[in-house]
Amino acid sequence: MHSTFSDPSSHPSSLQLTPHPSYSILLDMTQAATALAHPNIAFIKYWGLKDAANRIPANDSLSMNLGGLSTRTTVTLDPSLRADVLILNGERVSGAGLERAQLFLDRIRRLAGNPSPVLIESENNFPIGAGVASSASGFAALALAGAAAFGLDLAEPALSALARFGSGSACRSIPGGFVEWRTDAETGDSFAKSFAPEEHWDLADCIAILSESHKKTGSEVGMRLAGTSPLQAARVADSARRMRLCREAILNRDFNALAAITELDSNLMHAVMMTSQPPLFYWQPGSLAIMQAVKRWQVEGLPVTYTLDAGPNVHVICLKEAMDETLTRLRRMPGVLDVLLGFPAGPARLLPGDSQVSLQKV
Amino acid sequence: MHSTFSDPSSHPSSLQLTPHPSYSILLDMTQAATALAHPNIAFIKYWGLKDAANRIPANDSLSMNLGGLSTRTTVTLDPSLRADVLILNGERVSGAGLERAQLFLDRIRRLAGNPSPVLIESENNFPIGAGVASSASGFAALALAGAAAFGLDLAEPALSALARFGSGSACRSIPGGFVEWRTDAETGDSFAKSFAPEEHWDLADCIAILSESHKKTGSEVGMRLAGTSPLQAARVADSARRMRLCREAILNRDFNALAAITELDSNLMHAVMMTSQPPLFYWQPGSLAIMQAVKRWQVEGLPVTYTLDAGPNVHVICLKEAMDETLTRLRRMPGVLDVLLGFPAGPARLLPGDSQVSLQKV
Repeated sequence: MHSTFSDPSSHPSSLQLTPHPSYSILLDMTQAATALAHPNIAFIKYWGLKDAANRIPANDSLSMNLGGLSTRTTVTLDPSLRADVLILNGERVSGAGLERAQLFLDRIRRLAGNPSPVLIESENNFPIGAGVASSASGFAALALAGAAAFGLDLAEPALSALARFGSGSACRSIPGGFVEWRTDAETGDSFAKSFAPEEHWDLADCIAILSESHKKTGSEVGMRLAGTSPLQAARVADSARRMRLCREAILNRDFNALAAITELDSNLMHAVMMTSQPPLFYWQPGSLAIMQAVKRWQVEGLPVTYTLDAGPNVHVICLKEAMDETLTRLRRMPGVLDVLLGFPAGPARLLPGDSQVSLQKV
Repeated sequence: MHSTFSDPSSHPSSLQLTPHPSYSILLDMTQAATALAHPNIAFIKYWGLKDAANRIPANDSLSMNLGGLSTRTTVTLDPSLRADVLILNGERVSGAGLERAQLFLDRIRRLAGNPSPVLIESENNFPIGAGVASSASGFAALALAGAAAFGLDLAEPALSALARFGSGSACRSIPGGFVEWRTDAETGDSFAKSFAPEEHWDLADCIAILSESHKKTGSEVGMRLAGTSPLQAARVADSARRMRLCREAILNRDFNALAAITELDSNLMHAVMMTSQPPLFYWQPGSLAIMQAVKRWQVEGLPVTYTLDAGPNVHVICLKEAMDETLTRLRRMPGVLDVLLGFPAGPARLLPGDSQVSLQKV
């Protein structure tokens, strides 16, 4: 057992020991910590792994954190527990969900050299498993709260690299604002960092919820099939170009350019999904209806664009000035159960241990 | 003007002068001829050109002729006309539709060395422009009737090569049954031929009609955009494999294998369409609903598969024994206006000049 905790290959490369001022509050070796993280919506998608063991993605990706939507997670070390306990939205989780959290905590325990079981209490203010990436905010919050509870002082890149082992896209929920997840081909370092702060551009993400049920095929499972599509290699080969165009569109606040590359990238990912073996169709008829409505609204001059993750819900991104109109139109679309709102948001952060911060307000 | 008719580069390669017994009825230099051709449904799709001037497709394709659906076309030489006249389903056509027919007739006139204008009377027994390839049966019938009216004696390969200049997929409606359209890389010969007769396999094509209106972007225009998709090269590169799998599935009458490769190929073509610039979405929400229903019906054991051309209508291919059940289920689907039926059918053929054959019966 002890050898597991000292396995150097499990360390997320050379990044893990760099001190970082923003987390120095933890150095009193707290035995419990609470963190808050936002989901993110990718304009350039992550789909498929180049190196599954080290969770190295097939292509770089680019996203925006989504404030208004949050996961708050408290990790408490409790050596008296026989095993980790996970309470998610007030309900005790067992099976695969617990196991995934345990495996992730094992990584933190190895880094800390401390095998203590933990109590994990996690709460989302949005429905999980339906295309709003709860695993991203969940593992970002768990990485930060877990590292803090175990007294680890990780710089943002190391924390982002750590979070990616819980869920790839979780690494993008560690830094704030507009974020790129890049892998260094030489060192293998793979983490996300901000390239523009949340104040940079007043966008809104109007998330049309078509289903609140769990996906048939979760994205972690689905993306293992990416390589079976005849199209994945071409999608990946073209990704550096899309990263550049998307970054430029955001830096220039060029909405039309952002719309073109965002829709293309979403369509490319779903093209790979639909041509995997077996094929994965995350779109529902209602998803397609919204995508086509967005194209009509663009012709009318409304600054909107769409992107879909591994689920049926449609993220309709717009300039904030067009948000009210977009919301009104989306609520009229058939099959839309609800519309959630997200705005560019800051990084994952620690909260006071006895925080009563309402998730509705962050 | 005369030099146009003697331009040797306009001849469809070395194929055009081979005599063929099935068309020898024409050698009395008839000045009018009537031909009937069926549309075809491609299991392996044609989308994109390698050589636009010579109408050489980016990839080989494979299809089945659809009996029950027909175009009947009469071409009558009339030197007294000032220009060609086209009557389609009883209505006189002008503009782009007429021009396309004229350009095609020019090719026949050059081959025949006879500049006579013609009257073209053409009739479909199915709605045009909505994903049932009326251009395929239309130009196949026009090629055969036109060649016959001008007294040309073309063998099937030459006739197929000629038809492809009217509409690429028309070349596949010349031979009978199950058909492959291949291009010889060395000679450039590009025509379709049968690899199994129509009696080979009792399939049915239940075509769920979701729209009878004309497509926003016709396939001839749409496929010019194929090269703008980052996925087209990969789709084409994988096409020889799909041709082989599809041919084997048909020769072995292996429905599950046919279903897998047919759906993959359809999804690949629509993936290219949706990621072209500008993107082309031929699917409607109702199309996606039927595709997903077909996947559920397969799980229940119904031998069905789907494929879509450049339109919203869904071709639900099934074993004939499952046709009644498939029809019942399709008619219950929301948005389905009608269901057309097609069965494996024979080649394009000449009809007696004063034919009163009802299109409903062929």
